[in-house]
This record gives sequence, structure tokens and C-alpha cells, in this order.
Amino acid sequence: MDEPSHRGWIMKHRPEGKPERGDFELVRRPRPSPGPGETLVRVLYHSVDPYMRSRMGDTSNYAEGWPQGKLLRAGGVGEIVESRHPDRQVGDLIRGPLRWAEYATVSGDQVTTVDPQPAPISTALGVLGMPGRTAYFGMLEVAEPKAGETVMVSGAAGAVGSVAAQIAKMHDCRVIGTAGSDQKCTWLGNTAGIDAAINYRTAESLGSALDAAAPDGIDVYFDNVGGEITDAVFPRLNTWSRVAVCGQIALYNVEGRPTGPRKLRGMIGRRTTVQGFLVGDFSHRASTAEDRLADWMEQGVLSYEETVTEGIEGSVDAFVGLFDGENLGKQVVRVADRC
Amino acid sequence: MDEPSHRGWIMKHRPEGKPERGDFELVRRPRPSPGPGETLVRVLYHSVDPYMRSRMGDTSNYAEGWPQGKLLRAGGVGEIVESRHPDRQVGDLIRGPLRWAEYATVSGDQVTTVDPQPAPISTALGVLGMPGRTAYFGMLEVAEPKAGETVMVSGAAGAVGSVAAQIAKMHDCRVIGTAGSDQKCTWLGNTAGIDAAINYRTAESLGSALDAAAPDGIDVYFDNVGGEITDAVFPRLNTWSRVAVCGQIALYNVEGRPTGPRKLRGMIGRRTTVQGFLVGDFSHRASTAEDRLADWMEQGVLSYEETVTEGIEGSVDAFVGLFDGENLGKQVVRVADRC
Repeated sequence: MDEPSHRGWIMKHRPEGKPERGDFELVRRPRPSPGPGETLVRVLYHSVDPYMRSRMGDTSNYAEGWPQGKLLRAGGVGEIVESRHPDRQVGDLIRGPLRWAEYATVSGDQVTTVDPQPAPISTALGVLGMPGRTAYFGMLEVAEPKAGETVMVSGAAGAVGSVAAQIAKMHDCRVIGTAGSDQKCTWLGNTAGIDAAINYRTAESLGSALDAAAPDGIDVYFDNVGGEITDAVFPRLNTWSRVAVCGQIALYNVEGRPTGPRKLRGMIGRRTTVQGFLVGDFSHRASTAEDRLADWMEQGVLSYEETVTEGIEGSVDAFVGLFDGENLGKQVVRVADRC
Repeated sequence: MDEPSHRGWIMKHRPEGKPERGDFELVRRPRPSPGPGETLVRVLYHSVDPYMRSRMGDTSNYAEGWPQGKLLRAGGVGEIVESRHPDRQVGDLIRGPLRWAEYATVSGDQVTTVDPQPAPISTALGVLGMPGRTAYFGMLEVAEPKAGETVMVSGAAGAVGSVAAQIAKMHDCRVIGTAGSDQKCTWLGNTAGIDAAINYRTAESLGSALDAAAPDGIDVYFDNVGGEITDAVFPRLNTWSRVAVCGQIALYNVEGRPTGPRKLRGMIGRRTTVQGFLVGDFSHRASTAEDRLADWMEQGVLSYEETVTEGIEGSVDAFVGLFDGENLGKQVVRVADRC
């Protein structure tokens, strides 16, 4: 009898500039066996996130680069099909560091149980997962908006931005955001309920659009994008403004050392604070954030969207699509249905 | 009898790029008379500071631009020769907002008494004045160095930088700095006692010089300069690094919108905080800072230098020289001796 196998994605070579399908390969591998303390998980959903681009380079701003030839890592939701961990049972629905694959082994200590009620399990990768927590801590602990302030969110229709924008709105701020399509802007205005959404692809002048959307200037900038959008925001920051640097997706595929307008001089008179952060720094309070986010969803004050790509064959397209802004809300890949 | 007159400097036209002597004119004007609550001050020293360049433009990052044709403003030390303020007496030695001139009127509420002992009165414009306070609050309240950390100060031999570097040294940090001459670097090593001083004009590679001076990376960057020095510092910042943006003298004379390497992306993984500040935000605690600085001078742990230009004729040369780095420590203009 053949040993059981499964499919998953490897990186064939490190992307240069924008990742392309040819940088990756869908391979068939023997299904892994859990070691002591590990579980074997059948992957139901895996996440694709912009930060992964950094891990695909040789050097990373975040952490060491991913090795070539190994199945790519991703947060995922799955079902335990084999357990060598005392507290994890076959059939458990869990979230943890899985792979762009149909199966993955993971330490039983590194996974958390997923409640299939009240929200779909995929939200454990989005609004109730890492992106939701990133928005929560970045907005409330780093940016700290105050009632009446104007908050600008770039990438406002993305997994993190859509939550960040709504959290600011709950805190009685004027909230504006940028997104890359009219459909996203409509969602931001009608569903997320923000005050002004700017389609940065069609705006004749980002500066004028920001002036119109934020007539009193910008107090808080939650930046997921960087580049030209951020260049347009900085001159419009108010005195005592705060900038939370969450992501810079516009730059992840730029080779070399990108240049842009210098920003430090303008920060002196404005007493602007710019702060980079990682969601991992708040991991000890992850469950507090997720409970709060779940409460807000139940109360109907926090909406979310997901863009679901069907099948492991679609992982790379889903990932590459992040850089074209193809996703509304959280982008996930549905690998399998529950048994 | 002719009415009494005095000499002072006006701006003939707003400088473009680097200020030139021809942008200014030494004029003779009637000596002003104090209004109710004001005093007439005979100027003994006036300050020239890099921030003044901003006030000479039409638009300023700090405050409104200075008007053309009026005697230029400057912090100064002088002697009251006429008083219409109940608490100010003729003969009082004071510091306050004066002018690039031989006489100035100023509200008696806006001046503070200067003690001619133990330090020369000119230090009320330097180490015991605005630049000293800027270093004090910027280093201790914004940058917050911790024992054992590496602190980098650009413009380390200047009025602010020289004090900032020594304060960091007192807090048991490894302190490195940049300056524009070997003489300044020698002073920084031998008198200020910092660990490594880099002559940025002669260093073959700023990056290599920083690597050698800060083998464990940079935790705190107190930036007076901006531009290429700052570009070399940012990639060497450590996790949880702090940047206090005090000044950007390298950019003050650059017309248009200068560009440089983008810095936000690198700040995410490092969780860097970059903060602009103004000394005026700490004015309610000015005397605390000045008392502390005076104590340190008495204890012999805080050294200072002054570059003194003689005579009101020299004001513009002294000011323009700031941008060529001609001053070691605080640059002042001696306008007159005490009567």
C-alpha cells in the first residue's frame, strides 16, 4: 500500500519584485506524521497575508526568511486527525501555525480551540484572529484615537484596515480611509459606516481628496500601505498626531531601497509620533482582544468581509492577489470541508 | 537733539536655499520706547539658532514666518535701561525674547532674571538656556535612554547635541556622535567624554563608521541633523529603538521637497518610535531643567563650549556659519559689554 500523501505549496525560488505563480510549485509530499506532543491537522482554511512577502526574501524585516523547498507556512484552521498531545483530541477544531497544504503537523501547545459558533470558523483567521487583533492593539494601544479626532486608515477595506476603521468609529472619531475600488469604498461607507472613503486608484489628486475628507486635518494615521498614500497623509497630520505603522504593502515588492519625500522635518513642529508595531507583542492579551471583537460582532457594531479562494490550487493566486488589492476583507483559502 | 538710535538686522528678502549675507541688512533705527508693562533692554548677547531659518520662509513648520523689514527676533541677554513694569528695575540683568539689535523692548512678564554667577551670562542662551533645556527634555522625556543602551547624537558638538550627548553619558549609556571637524571630535572624546565621535565630512563610509562605533546597534537616536546621517542611522536601529527628532539642519536650506530612503517599513519589525518635539512643550518645567543642568556643571560632569562672534556687525555671519558647522557648542553674538 502507498503511504498517504497530500498536496502543498513550496517556493521554487525567491520572488524578485512582485511574486509570480512561477515562483511557487504545488507538490505532492508524503503526509507528515506527528512527533511527540504534536498533532496532525487536516487543513480546512489557510491564510495568506501580506507579511508573508517579507519571509520570502533572503533577509526580512520581521524574522528569518523562509527556506526554499519546504511547504510554506500559514496560519490555518483545521481538524485534528491524529494526536500525540494529551490535551488535543482527534476531531478537535483548532487554529494554529499550519501550512499552504492539505495537512500539517503542529505542536499541540501551539494551537487553540476554535468555536464553530457563532461566527464561521474562517473568521478565526480574520476578524477574530491575527488581523483582528492587529487592528485592535494597533488602534487602541499604539494610535490611541480620542473622541472627535480624525482617523485615517490606509488599506481600509483589507483584513486589518476594515477592523481598525470600525474600531476608530466606535470611539467616536471621524474616520476616513483609502481603498482600491469603488466596490470597497461603497462597503466602507455603507457597511463599515466610515465617514469618507477614497478610491486611491481613481482619485485625481490624493491630496485634494484627503483635504475634502479630512477638513480639520488628520490626528491619527493607521498605515497598512505606505508609499504614495502615506506621502499624501504626512503633510496633513495635525499637531500631536500619531502614526501607527502596521504594514507597508505598497513597498513589499519594490526591489532595492525605495525613496520618497523626507518626513522627519515636518514631524518636529507637529510633534508627530510614528511607531512601528507587531501584533505578537500583545500575544499575552490575545484572548481579551478576540473576546472584545466577538462581542462587537454580536452587538452588530463590527462588520467583516472575507474573500474565499476555493481549493489548495488557488493559494498562490490568492496570495498574489493581495498585492493587486483583489480581496475585500480577509483573504483565505478554503482547502477542505469539515468531515 | 537727535532722538537716540541703534543698529539691528532686518531681512531684506526671504532667503532661497542657504541664507546669504545679502538677504539681510544692518539698519539704523530709532531706539524703541517701552510701552506699559514693557522694559527697554540694552542687548549684551543675542542668540542665533538653526530654527530661525524656518521663520525666514513664508511658511514654517514651527510657527508663522517672520515679517520682512522688522528687526529680527532672537533670544538674548541684556540689561534693563528703562522699565514700565513694576517688578523690573533698571540695571536688572535679564534673558528674554530680544532682537538682533543693540536695544529691544520686551514685556517685563516675558523676561527672567539672569544670575551672573557662577557661569558667564551668555550660558543663559546655551547650556543653561533653550538649547540646554532642549537637550534635557528631548533626551530624558522623549528618547529615554536606559543604562547600557547605545545612544547616537547627530550634531553632537552643537549647542543642543553637546549637552544631549553628555546627559546620555551620565545615564550610563554608550554614546556616539557625529560632528563636522576633527577638532569637534577631539572635544567630544576628550572633554565631553563620549565613546566614539565620527567626523561625517571625512568618514569614508558613514555606515561603516557607525558599525564600528556602535557594534551592538543603536537604541536611541537624538537627531539634530537629518539627511544622509539619519539615512545611515535608521538601518542600524535596534528593536524597540527610539528616535527623538529635535532638528533637521541638513534640510533647512533645501528648497522643494527633499527625498530620501523610505524609513517606515524598517520600523515595523524593529518597533521603532520616532517622535518630533519642541522645547516649548516643557516650558512649565524649564527652571527644573536649568537647575539640574547648573548642578551638573558645578559637579563637573557637564562641559560646554561657546563660539562668540563679536559685535552686532557679525550677527549674519554667525547665523550663516551655523549651516557650515562653524560653531563648537553654542553660537552667540556679543553685542555689548555690561556697563
